[in-house]
Amino acid sequence: MASQPTLRQKLAQAQTENRSWLCIGLDPVRDRLPASVRDIARPFLAFCRAIVAATADLVCAYKPNLAFWLTEGPAGLAQLQALIADIPPTIPVILDGKFNDVGHTANAYAHFAFEVLGVDAVTLNPYLGMDGIRPFLNNENFGAFLLARTSNPSAPDVQDLSAGGNPVYEEIARLAAQWEEHLPGMCGLVVGATYPAEMARVRQLAPTLPFLIPGVGAQGGSVEAARIHGPTQDELGPVVNSSRGIIYASSGDDFAQAARNAALRIQAQLRPK
Amino acid sequence: MASQPTLRQKLAQAQTENRSWLCIGLDPVRDRLPASVRDIARPFLAFCRAIVAATADLVCAYKPNLAFWLTEGPAGLAQLQALIADIPPTIPVILDGKFNDVGHTANAYAHFAFEVLGVDAVTLNPYLGMDGIRPFLNNENFGAFLLARTSNPSAPDVQDLSAGGNPVYEEIARLAAQWEEHLPGMCGLVVGATYPAEMARVRQLAPTLPFLIPGVGAQGGSVEAARIHGPTQDELGPVVNSSRGIIYASSGDDFAQAARNAALRIQAQLRPK
Repeated sequence: MASQPTLRQKLAQAQTENRSWLCIGLDPVRDRLPASVRDIARPFLAFCRAIVAATADLVCAYKPNLAFWLTEGPAGLAQLQALIADIPPTIPVILDGKFNDVGHTANAYAHFAFEVLGVDAVTLNPYLGMDGIRPFLNNENFGAFLLARTSNPSAPDVQDLSAGGNPVYEEIARLAAQWEEHLPGMCGLVVGATYPAEMARVRQLAPTLPFLIPGVGAQGGSVEAARIHGPTQDELGPVVNSSRGIIYASSGDDFAQAARNAALRIQAQLRPK
Repeated sequence: MASQPTLRQKLAQAQTENRSWLCIGLDPVRDRLPASVRDIARPFLAFCRAIVAATADLVCAYKPNLAFWLTEGPAGLAQLQALIADIPPTIPVILDGKFNDVGHTANAYAHFAFEVLGVDAVTLNPYLGMDGIRPFLNNENFGAFLLARTSNPSAPDVQDLSAGGNPVYEEIARLAAQWEEHLPGMCGLVVGATYPAEMARVRQLAPTLPFLIPGVGAQGGSVEAARIHGPTQDELGPVVNSSRGIIYASSGDDFAQAARNAALRIQAQLRPK
Protein backbone atom coordinates (compact mmCIF):
# COMPACT_ATOMS: atom_id res chain seq x y z
CA MET A 1 0.00 0.00 0.00
CA ALA A 2 1.37 3.42 -0.96
CA SER A 3 1.91 5.65 2.04
CA GLN A 4 -0.51 8.54 2.42
CA PRO A 5 0.92 11.87 1.23
CA THR A 6 1.47 14.53 3.86
CA LEU A 7 -0.99 17.41 3.75
CA ARG A 8 1.72 19.67 2.36
CA GLN A 9 2.29 17.19 -0.49
CA LYS A 10 -1.44 16.77 -1.08
CA LEU A 11 -1.93 20.54 -1.31
CA ALA A 12 1.07 20.95 -3.65
CA GLN A 13 -0.24 18.14 -5.88
CA ALA A 14 -3.72 19.67 -6.10
CA GLN A 15 -2.18 23.04 -6.98
CA THR A 16 -0.05 21.49 -9.71
CA GLU A 17 -2.64 19.16 -11.20
CA ASN A 18 -5.39 21.78 -11.37
CA ARG A 19 -2.95 24.63 -12.01
CA SER A 20 -4.78 26.54 -9.32
CA TRP A 21 -4.39 28.43 -6.07
CA LEU A 22 -8.14 28.93 -5.83
CA CYS A 23 -10.16 27.68 -2.87
CA ILE A 24 -13.94 27.89 -2.95
CA GLY A 25 -15.76 28.71 0.28
CA LEU A 26 -18.78 26.44 0.67
CA ASP A 27 -20.96 28.76 2.74
CA PRO A 28 -24.64 28.15 1.95
CA VAL A 29 -27.28 30.64 3.12
CA ARG A 30 -30.88 29.50 2.72
CA ASP A 31 -32.25 32.81 1.42
CA ARG A 32 -29.62 32.98 -1.30
CA LEU A 33 -30.12 29.51 -2.73
CA PRO A 34 -31.73 29.25 -6.18
CA ALA A 35 -35.49 28.72 -5.87
CA SER A 36 -35.20 25.28 -7.49
CA VAL A 37 -32.91 24.10 -4.71
CA ARG A 38 -34.27 25.93 -1.66
CA ASP A 39 -37.24 23.71 -0.96
CA ILE A 40 -35.92 20.25 -1.69
CA ALA A 41 -34.67 17.87 0.99
CA ARG A 42 -31.07 18.60 2.04
CA PRO A 43 -30.80 21.86 0.05
CA PHE A 44 -27.33 22.83 1.33
CA LEU A 45 -25.94 19.47 0.28
CA ALA A 46 -27.57 19.55 -3.17
CA PHE A 47 -26.40 23.12 -3.80
CA CYS A 48 -22.79 22.56 -2.72
CA ARG A 49 -22.55 19.16 -4.41
CA ALA A 50 -23.44 20.82 -7.70
CA ILE A 51 -20.83 23.54 -7.09
CA VAL A 52 -18.17 20.92 -6.30
CA ALA A 53 -19.05 18.84 -9.37
CA ALA A 54 -18.70 21.95 -11.56
CA THR A 55 -15.40 23.16 -10.10
CA ALA A 56 -13.35 20.20 -8.81
CA ASP A 57 -10.85 20.52 -11.68
CA LEU A 58 -10.31 24.24 -10.97
CA VAL A 59 -9.43 24.41 -7.27
CA CYS A 60 -6.66 23.47 -4.85
CA ALA A 61 -9.00 23.24 -1.85
CA TYR A 62 -12.55 23.69 -0.58
CA LYS A 63 -13.33 25.57 2.62
CA PRO A 64 -16.73 25.11 4.29
CA ASN A 65 -17.34 27.57 7.12
CA LEU A 66 -19.00 25.72 10.01
CA ALA A 67 -21.27 28.67 10.92
CA PHE A 68 -23.48 28.40 7.85
CA TRP A 69 -24.06 24.66 8.22
CA LEU A 70 -24.98 25.04 11.90
CA THR A 71 -27.78 27.49 11.05
CA GLU A 72 -29.73 24.43 9.88
CA GLY A 73 -29.11 22.54 13.13
CA PRO A 74 -28.36 18.81 13.22
CA ALA A 75 -29.66 18.39 9.66
CA GLY A 76 -27.19 21.00 8.45
CA LEU A 77 -24.30 19.23 10.14
CA ALA A 78 -25.36 15.94 8.56
CA GLN A 79 -25.36 17.63 5.15
CA LEU A 80 -21.84 18.98 5.74
CA GLN A 81 -20.66 15.50 6.70
CA ALA A 82 -22.16 14.03 3.50
CA LEU A 83 -20.68 16.81 1.37
CA ILE A 84 -17.17 16.29 2.71
CA ALA A 85 -17.40 12.56 2.07
CA ASP A 86 -18.26 13.44 -1.52
CA ILE A 87 -15.36 15.78 -2.30
CA PRO A 88 -12.65 14.05 -4.39
CA PRO A 89 -9.96 12.73 -2.00
CA THR A 90 -7.18 14.52 -3.90
CA ILE A 91 -8.60 17.94 -2.97
CA PRO A 92 -7.83 19.15 0.57
CA VAL A 93 -10.81 20.29 2.63
CA ILE A 94 -10.30 23.05 5.20
CA LEU A 95 -12.96 23.36 7.91
CA ASP A 96 -13.23 27.06 8.75
CA GLY A 97 -14.16 26.89 12.43
CA LYS A 98 -11.67 29.37 13.91
CA PHE A 99 -11.45 27.01 16.88
CA ASN A 100 -9.82 28.15 20.10
CA ASP A 101 -10.07 26.43 23.43
CA VAL A 102 -8.10 24.94 26.30
CA GLY A 103 -6.16 21.74 25.61
CA HIS A 104 -8.65 18.98 26.42
CA THR A 105 -11.43 20.87 24.62
CA ALA A 106 -9.19 21.52 21.63
CA ASN A 107 -8.74 17.74 21.52
CA ALA A 108 -12.51 17.38 21.16
CA TYR A 109 -12.60 19.86 18.27
CA ALA A 110 -9.70 18.06 16.55
CA HIS A 111 -11.59 14.77 16.85
CA PHE A 112 -14.71 16.42 15.42
CA ALA A 113 -12.85 17.96 12.47
CA PHE A 114 -10.48 15.14 11.48
CA GLU A 115 -12.43 12.05 12.54
CA VAL A 116 -16.14 12.91 12.56
CA LEU A 117 -16.13 15.19 9.51
CA GLY A 118 -12.93 13.91 7.89
CA VAL A 119 -11.38 17.22 6.81
CA ASP A 120 -7.65 17.74 6.20
CA ALA A 121 -7.18 21.08 7.94
CA VAL A 122 -8.90 23.68 10.09
CA THR A 123 -8.62 27.36 10.86
CA LEU A 124 -7.63 28.30 14.41
CA ASN A 125 -7.65 31.49 16.47
CA PRO A 126 -4.33 31.75 18.34
CA TYR A 127 -5.51 33.85 21.33
CA LEU A 128 -5.17 30.92 23.79
CA GLY A 129 -1.60 30.12 22.75
CA MET A 130 0.14 26.83 22.04
CA ASP A 131 -2.14 24.60 24.22
CA GLY A 132 -5.11 25.12 21.94
CA ILE A 133 -3.13 24.52 18.77
CA ARG A 134 -1.07 21.40 19.51
CA PRO A 135 -3.97 18.90 19.24
CA PHE A 136 -4.52 19.89 15.60
CA LEU A 137 -0.89 19.58 14.53
CA ASN A 138 0.35 16.28 15.90
CA ASN A 139 0.20 14.47 12.56
CA GLU A 140 1.67 15.43 9.18
CA ASN A 141 -1.52 14.38 7.39
CA PHE A 142 -3.40 17.24 9.03
CA GLY A 143 -2.93 20.96 9.31
CA ALA A 144 -4.16 24.26 10.67
CA PHE A 145 -4.14 27.85 9.48
CA LEU A 146 -3.79 30.33 12.36
CA LEU A 147 -5.47 33.72 12.15
CA ALA A 148 -2.80 36.40 11.79
CA ARG A 149 -4.50 39.18 9.84
CA THR A 150 -8.22 38.70 9.20
CA SER A 151 -10.00 40.27 6.22
CA ASN A 152 -12.72 42.25 8.03
CA PRO A 153 -12.92 46.05 8.54
CA SER A 154 -12.46 45.89 12.33
CA ALA A 155 -9.41 43.61 12.15
CA PRO A 156 -7.19 46.47 13.42
CA ASP A 157 -9.10 46.79 16.76
CA VAL A 158 -7.03 44.05 18.39
CA GLN A 159 -4.59 42.92 15.67
CA ASP A 160 -2.94 46.36 15.38
CA LEU A 161 -2.45 46.88 19.11
CA SER A 162 1.23 47.60 19.49
CA ALA A 163 2.93 44.61 21.13
CA GLY A 164 6.38 45.71 22.27
CA GLY A 165 6.54 48.08 19.31
CA ASN A 166 5.15 45.63 16.73
CA PRO A 167 1.49 45.00 15.96
CA VAL A 168 -0.04 41.91 17.54
CA TYR A 169 -0.62 40.23 14.15
CA GLU A 170 3.16 40.31 13.49
CA GLU A 171 3.81 38.67 16.86
CA ILE A 172 1.35 35.93 15.90
CA ALA A 173 3.33 35.33 12.70
CA ARG A 174 6.57 35.08 14.71
CA LEU A 175 4.99 32.71 17.26
CA ALA A 176 3.52 30.51 14.52
CA ALA A 177 6.89 30.25 12.82
CA GLN A 178 8.37 29.02 16.14
CA TRP A 179 5.51 26.62 16.93
CA GLU A 180 5.68 25.18 13.42
CA GLU A 181 9.21 23.90 14.04
CA HIS A 182 8.04 21.73 16.93
CA LEU A 183 4.90 20.22 15.43
CA PRO A 184 4.61 17.66 12.63
CA GLY A 185 1.31 18.97 11.18
CA MET A 186 1.20 21.62 8.45
CA CYS A 187 1.00 25.00 10.21
CA GLY A 188 -0.10 27.92 8.04
CA LEU A 189 -1.41 31.45 8.52
CA VAL A 190 -4.59 33.28 7.56
CA VAL A 191 -3.85 36.65 5.99
CA GLY A 192 -6.66 38.68 4.42
CA ALA A 193 -6.30 39.90 0.83
CA THR A 194 -7.92 43.14 2.02
CA TYR A 195 -4.66 44.07 3.83
CA PRO A 196 -1.85 43.79 1.23
CA ALA A 197 0.82 45.66 3.24
CA GLU A 198 0.21 43.47 6.27
CA MET A 199 0.37 40.38 4.03
CA ALA A 200 3.82 41.44 2.77
CA ARG A 201 5.02 41.87 6.36
CA VAL A 202 3.71 38.47 7.49
CA ARG A 203 5.44 36.83 4.52
CA GLN A 204 8.76 38.39 5.64
CA LEU A 205 8.29 37.08 9.18
CA ALA A 206 7.15 33.59 8.22
CA PRO A 207 8.74 32.73 4.85
CA THR A 208 7.99 29.00 4.99
CA LEU A 209 4.39 28.99 6.27
CA PRO A 210 1.58 28.38 3.76
CA PHE A 211 -1.00 31.15 3.53
CA LEU A 212 -4.77 30.88 3.49
CA ILE A 213 -5.95 34.15 1.94
CA PRO A 214 -9.61 35.10 2.34
CA GLY A 215 -11.22 38.30 1.14
CA VAL A 216 -10.92 38.23 -2.65
CA GLY A 217 -14.23 38.52 -4.49
CA ALA A 218 -17.15 39.92 -2.47
CA GLN A 219 -14.85 41.48 0.15
CA GLY A 220 -12.79 43.27 -2.53
CA GLY A 221 -9.30 42.07 -1.57
CA SER A 222 -6.20 42.18 -3.75
CA VAL A 223 -5.53 39.25 -6.07
CA GLU A 224 -2.22 40.91 -6.95
CA ALA A 225 -1.01 40.81 -3.33
CA ALA A 226 -1.93 37.13 -3.12
CA ARG A 227 0.04 36.46 -6.30
CA ILE A 228 3.16 38.27 -5.07
CA HIS A 229 3.27 37.51 -1.34
CA GLY A 230 1.26 34.29 -1.30
CA PRO A 231 3.86 31.63 -2.15
CA THR A 232 6.28 30.31 0.46
CA GLN A 233 10.02 30.57 -0.16
CA ASP A 234 9.98 26.97 -1.40
CA GLU A 235 7.11 27.87 -3.71
CA LEU A 236 4.13 26.22 -2.12
CA GLY A 237 1.31 28.39 -3.40
CA PRO A 238 -1.26 30.10 -1.23
CA VAL A 239 -4.84 28.90 -0.78
CA VAL A 240 -6.86 31.87 -2.00
CA ASN A 241 -10.47 31.72 -0.96
CA SER A 242 -13.54 33.17 -2.60
CA SER A 243 -17.02 32.23 -1.41
CA ARG A 244 -19.94 34.48 -2.34
CA GLY A 245 -18.45 35.77 -5.60
CA ILE A 246 -18.41 32.20 -6.91
CA ILE A 247 -21.22 30.24 -5.29
CA TYR A 248 -23.80 33.01 -5.81
CA ALA A 249 -22.57 34.06 -9.27
CA SER A 250 -26.10 33.30 -10.52
CA SER A 251 -29.32 32.96 -8.55
CA GLY A 252 -30.91 30.95 -11.34
CA ASP A 253 -30.82 27.29 -12.32
CA ASP A 254 -27.49 27.92 -14.06
CA PHE A 255 -25.80 28.54 -10.69
CA ALA A 256 -23.29 25.69 -11.08
CA GLN A 257 -22.18 26.74 -14.56
CA ALA A 258 -22.02 30.38 -13.41
CA ALA A 259 -19.89 29.29 -10.45
CA ARG A 260 -17.57 27.46 -12.85
CA ASN A 261 -17.22 30.57 -15.01
CA ALA A 262 -16.50 32.77 -11.98
CA ALA A 263 -13.98 30.22 -10.69
CA LEU A 264 -12.26 30.10 -14.09
CA ARG A 265 -11.78 33.89 -14.03
CA ILE A 266 -10.14 33.91 -10.57
CA GLN A 267 -8.12 30.76 -11.29
CA ALA A 268 -6.68 32.44 -14.41
CA GLN A 269 -5.68 35.57 -12.45
CA LEU A 270 -3.94 33.38 -9.89
CA ARG A 271 -2.50 30.57 -11.98
CA PRO A 272 0.79 29.27 -10.53
CA LYS A 273 3.89 29.43 -12.69
CA MET B 1 -48.23 39.69 28.75
CA ALA B 2 -45.38 40.49 31.15
CA SER B 3 -42.31 41.79 29.33
CA GLN B 4 -39.36 39.42 29.15
CA PRO B 5 -36.61 40.25 31.66
CA THR B 6 -33.30 41.39 30.23
CA LEU B 7 -30.50 38.85 30.45
CA ARG B 8 -28.86 40.89 33.18
CA GLN B 9 -32.10 40.73 35.21
CA LYS B 10 -32.55 37.03 34.51
CA LEU B 11 -29.00 36.28 35.69
CA ALA B 12 -29.42 38.41 38.82
CA GLN B 13 -32.71 36.68 39.63
CA ALA B 14 -31.20 33.20 39.23
CA GLN B 15 -28.29 34.21 41.49
CA THR B 16 -30.68 35.53 44.15
CA GLU B 17 -33.24 32.74 44.04
CA ASN B 18 -30.71 29.92 44.13
CA ARG B 19 -28.25 31.89 46.31
CA SER B 20 -25.56 30.85 43.87
CA TRP B 21 -22.81 32.06 41.59
CA LEU B 22 -22.13 28.53 40.40
CA CYS B 23 -22.37 27.55 36.74
CA ILE B 24 -22.05 23.92 35.74
CA GLY B 25 -20.23 23.10 32.51
CA LEU B 26 -22.18 20.46 30.58
CA ASP B 27 -19.27 18.86 28.75
CA PRO B 28 -19.94 15.15 28.17
CA VAL B 29 -17.13 12.85 27.05
CA ARG B 30 -18.20 9.37 26.00
CA ASP B 31 -15.39 7.49 27.76
CA ARG B 32 -16.11 9.19 31.05
CA LEU B 33 -19.84 8.46 31.19
CA PRO B 34 -21.07 5.91 33.76
CA ALA B 35 -21.34 2.45 32.19
CA SER B 36 -25.11 2.45 32.72
CA VAL B 37 -25.50 5.53 30.53
CA ARG B 38 -22.79 5.03 27.91
CA ASP B 39 -24.59 2.53 25.71
CA ILE B 40 -28.17 3.77 25.75
CA ALA B 41 -29.67 5.90 22.99
CA ARG B 42 -28.80 9.60 23.32
CA PRO B 43 -26.29 9.08 26.18
CA PHE B 44 -25.12 12.72 26.35
CA LEU B 45 -28.70 13.92 26.73
CA ALA B 46 -29.57 11.34 29.38
CA PHE B 47 -26.42 12.06 31.37
CA CYS B 48 -26.75 15.85 31.31
CA ARG B 49 -30.51 15.79 31.90
CA ALA B 50 -29.88 13.85 35.12
CA ILE B 51 -27.20 16.37 36.15
CA VAL B 52 -29.55 19.29 35.46
CA ALA B 53 -32.42 17.66 37.37
CA ALA B 54 -30.12 17.15 40.36
CA THR B 55 -28.65 20.69 40.40
CA ALA B 56 -31.15 23.19 38.96
CA ASP B 57 -31.80 24.70 42.42
CA LEU B 58 -28.06 25.22 43.03
CA VAL B 59 -26.82 27.13 39.99
CA CYS B 60 -27.10 30.56 38.35
CA ALA B 61 -26.32 29.22 34.84
CA TYR B 62 -25.40 26.19 32.76
CA LYS B 63 -22.62 26.29 30.19
CA PRO B 64 -22.43 23.57 27.52
CA ASN B 65 -19.21 23.69 25.49
CA LEU B 66 -20.05 23.07 21.84
CA ALA B 67 -16.90 21.00 21.20
CA PHE B 68 -17.99 18.00 23.24
CA TRP B 69 -21.42 17.76 21.63
CA LEU B 70 -19.92 17.97 18.12
CA THR B 71 -17.75 14.90 18.79
CA GLU B 72 -20.95 12.87 18.35
CA GLY B 73 -21.79 14.53 15.02
CA PRO B 74 -25.36 15.49 14.06
CA ALA B 75 -26.77 13.21 16.77
CA GLY B 76 -24.73 15.07 19.38
CA LEU B 77 -26.02 18.42 18.20
CA ALA B 78 -29.59 17.13 18.33
CA GLN B 79 -29.00 16.01 21.93
CA LEU B 80 -27.67 19.47 22.85
CA GLN B 81 -30.75 21.08 21.31
CA ALA B 82 -33.04 18.79 23.32
CA LEU B 83 -31.09 19.40 26.52
CA ILE B 84 -31.30 23.18 26.21
CA ALA B 85 -35.05 23.00 25.61
CA ASP B 86 -35.25 21.05 28.86
CA ILE B 87 -33.36 23.45 31.14
CA PRO B 88 -35.73 25.52 33.34
CA PRO B 89 -36.35 28.87 31.59
CA THR B 90 -35.34 30.85 34.68
CA ILE B 91 -31.73 29.58 34.42
CA PRO B 92 -29.55 31.30 31.79
CA VAL B 93 -27.74 29.00 29.37
CA ILE B 94 -24.35 30.09 28.00
CA LEU B 95 -23.15 28.34 24.85
CA ASP B 96 -19.36 28.11 25.10
CA GLY B 97 -18.39 28.32 21.43
CA LYS B 98 -15.67 31.00 21.57
CA PHE B 99 -17.03 32.22 18.24
CA ASN B 100 -15.03 34.65 16.15
CA ASP B 101 -15.67 35.51 12.54
CA VAL B 102 -16.31 38.34 10.09
CA GLY B 103 -19.64 40.18 10.35
CA HIS B 104 -21.92 38.18 8.06
CA THR B 105 -20.56 34.89 9.42
CA ALA B 106 -20.92 36.10 13.00
CA ASN B 107 -24.58 36.72 12.11
CA ALA B 108 -24.89 33.04 11.19
CA TYR B 109 -23.39 31.95 14.52
CA ALA B 110 -25.72 34.31 16.42
CA HIS B 111 -28.70 32.79 14.61
CA PHE B 112 -27.44 29.30 15.45
CA ALA B 113 -26.94 30.11 19.15
CA PHE B 114 -29.99 32.23 19.91
CA GLU B 115 -32.58 30.86 17.46
CA VAL B 116 -31.60 27.28 16.57
CA LEU B 117 -30.35 26.26 20.03
CA GLY B 118 -32.16 28.90 22.07
CA VAL B 119 -29.39 29.87 24.49
CA ASP B 120 -29.20 33.21 26.32
CA ALA B 121 -25.52 33.99 25.86
CA VAL B 122 -22.34 32.84 24.18
CA THR B 123 -18.61 33.12 24.65
CA LEU B 124 -16.67 35.06 22.01
CA ASN B 125 -13.03 35.47 21.08
CA PRO B 126 -12.33 39.17 20.46
CA TYR B 127 -9.39 38.81 18.03
CA LEU B 128 -11.45 40.03 15.03
CA GLY B 129 -12.66 43.17 16.79
CA MET B 130 -16.08 44.81 16.98
CA ASP B 131 -17.45 43.39 13.67
CA GLY B 132 -17.54 39.87 14.99
CA ILE B 133 -19.13 40.86 18.29
CA ARG B 134 -21.94 43.22 17.31
CA PRO B 135 -24.32 40.52 15.94
CA PHE B 136 -24.44 38.85 19.38
CA LEU B 137 -25.19 42.02 21.34
CA ASN B 138 -27.98 43.81 19.50
CA ASN B 139 -30.72 42.77 21.95
CA GLU B 140 -30.87 43.11 25.74
CA ASN B 141 -32.28 39.59 26.09
CA PHE B 142 -28.99 38.14 24.88
CA GLY B 143 -25.38 38.44 25.88
CA ALA B 144 -21.77 37.49 25.24
CA PHE B 145 -18.70 36.95 27.39
CA LEU B 146 -15.50 37.99 25.62
CA LEU B 147 -12.26 36.13 26.32
CA ALA B 148 -9.92 38.42 28.23
CA ARG B 149 -7.78 36.05 30.31
CA THR B 150 -8.30 32.36 29.63
CA SER B 151 -7.65 29.69 32.27
CA ASN B 152 -5.11 27.52 30.39
CA PRO B 153 -1.34 27.26 31.01
CA SER B 154 -0.37 28.84 27.66
CA ALA B 155 -2.71 31.82 28.06
CA PRO B 156 0.33 34.15 28.43
CA ASP B 157 1.70 33.28 24.92
CA VAL B 158 -0.49 35.90 23.25
CA GLN B 159 -2.47 37.48 26.10
CA ASP B 160 0.65 38.76 27.89
CA LEU B 161 2.27 40.30 24.82
CA SER B 162 2.95 43.88 25.77
CA ALA B 163 0.52 46.17 23.91
CA GLY B 164 1.80 49.71 24.24
CA GLY B 165 3.17 48.87 27.67
CA ASN B 166 0.11 46.91 28.86
CA PRO B 167 -0.59 43.24 28.30
CA VAL B 168 -3.03 42.42 25.48
CA TYR B 169 -5.63 40.97 27.88
CA GLU B 170 -5.88 44.35 29.62
CA GLU B 171 -6.46 46.07 26.29
CA ILE B 172 -9.27 43.62 25.61
CA ALA B 173 -10.87 44.58 28.93
CA ARG B 174 -10.62 48.28 27.99
CA LEU B 175 -12.06 47.66 24.51
CA ALA B 176 -14.93 45.58 25.89
CA ALA B 177 -15.81 48.33 28.38
CA GLN B 178 -16.02 50.77 25.44
CA TRP B 179 -17.98 48.42 23.17
CA GLU B 180 -20.41 47.62 25.97
CA GLU B 181 -21.57 51.25 26.09
CA HIS B 182 -22.73 51.11 22.48
CA LEU B 183 -24.51 47.77 22.46
CA PRO B 184 -27.79 46.81 24.16
CA GLY B 185 -26.86 43.17 24.86
CA MET B 186 -25.15 42.08 28.08
CA CYS B 187 -21.40 42.22 27.44
CA GLY B 188 -19.21 40.37 29.93
CA LEU B 189 -15.66 39.07 30.15
CA VAL B 190 -14.09 35.63 30.60
CA VAL B 191 -11.36 35.69 33.25
CA GLY B 192 -9.82 32.42 34.43
CA ALA B 193 -9.73 31.65 38.15
CA THR B 194 -6.24 30.26 37.56
CA TYR B 195 -4.93 33.84 37.18
CA PRO B 196 -6.07 35.77 40.30
CA ALA B 197 -3.78 38.79 39.82
CA GLU B 198 -4.94 39.25 36.24
CA MET B 199 -8.56 38.92 37.41
CA ALA B 200 -8.04 41.76 39.90
CA ARG B 201 -6.60 43.94 37.15
CA VAL B 202 -9.45 43.22 34.71
CA ARG B 203 -11.98 44.09 37.43
CA GLN B 204 -10.27 47.50 37.87
CA LEU B 205 -10.43 48.17 34.13
CA ALA B 206 -14.02 47.01 33.62
CA PRO B 207 -15.89 47.58 36.90
CA THR B 208 -19.38 47.11 35.44
CA LEU B 209 -18.88 44.07 33.20
CA PRO B 210 -20.13 40.68 34.45
CA PHE B 211 -17.46 37.98 34.70
CA LEU B 212 -17.60 34.40 33.53
CA ILE B 213 -14.90 32.64 35.55
CA PRO B 214 -13.75 29.21 34.38
CA GLY B 215 -10.99 27.15 35.93
CA VAL B 216 -12.21 26.30 39.43
CA GLY B 217 -12.37 22.58 40.21
CA ALA B 218 -10.33 20.33 37.90
CA GLN B 219 -8.14 23.20 36.69
CA GLY B 220 -7.30 24.26 40.25
CA GLY B 221 -8.29 27.94 40.09
CA SER B 222 -8.94 30.24 43.03
CA VAL B 223 -12.46 30.36 44.46
CA GLU B 224 -11.25 33.15 46.75
CA ALA B 225 -10.30 35.39 43.79
CA ALA B 226 -13.71 34.79 42.25
CA ARG B 227 -15.38 35.77 45.52
CA ILE B 228 -13.39 38.98 45.87
CA HIS B 229 -13.01 40.25 42.31
CA GLY B 230 -15.98 38.53 40.70
CA PRO B 231 -18.88 40.92 41.47
CA THR B 232 -19.42 44.08 39.42
CA GLN B 233 -19.51 47.45 41.20
CA ASP B 234 -23.32 47.26 41.22
CA GLU B 235 -23.04 43.77 42.74
CA LEU B 236 -24.03 41.50 39.91
CA GLY B 237 -22.26 38.31 40.87
CA PRO B 238 -19.88 36.40 38.63
CA VAL B 239 -20.76 33.20 36.81
CA VAL B 240 -18.22 30.74 38.19
CA ASN B 241 -17.92 27.60 36.11
CA SER B 242 -16.92 24.10 37.11
CA SER B 243 -17.34 21.19 34.73
CA ARG B 244 -15.37 18.02 35.36
CA GLY B 245 -15.18 18.41 39.14
CA ILE B 246 -18.97 18.25 39.29
CA ILE B 247 -20.25 16.15 36.40
CA TYR B 248 -17.67 13.38 36.92
CA ALA B 249 -17.75 13.46 40.73
CA SER B 250 -18.73 9.78 40.57
CA SER B 251 -18.33 7.29 37.71
CA GLY B 252 -21.04 5.07 39.17
CA ASP B 253 -24.81 5.07 39.02
CA ASP B 254 -24.86 7.69 41.78
CA PHE B 255 -23.33 10.28 39.41
CA ALA B 256 -26.24 12.72 39.66
CA GLN B 257 -26.33 12.67 43.47
CA ALA B 258 -22.53 12.97 43.55
CA ALA B 259 -22.76 15.94 41.18
CA ARG B 260 -25.30 17.54 43.50
CA ASN B 261 -22.99 17.07 46.49
CA ALA B 262 -20.02 18.52 44.61
CA ALA B 263 -22.15 21.47 43.44
CA LEU B 264 -23.35 22.10 47.01
CA ARG B 265 -19.74 22.35 48.19
CA ILE B 266 -18.74 24.94 45.59
CA GLN B 267 -22.01 26.83 45.91
CA ALA B 268 -21.40 27.19 49.67
CA GLN B 269 -17.87 28.53 49.12
CA LEU B 270 -19.25 31.10 46.67
CA ARG B 271 -22.60 31.99 48.17
CA PRO B 272 -23.51 35.65 47.44
CA LYS B 273 -24.12 37.97 50.40
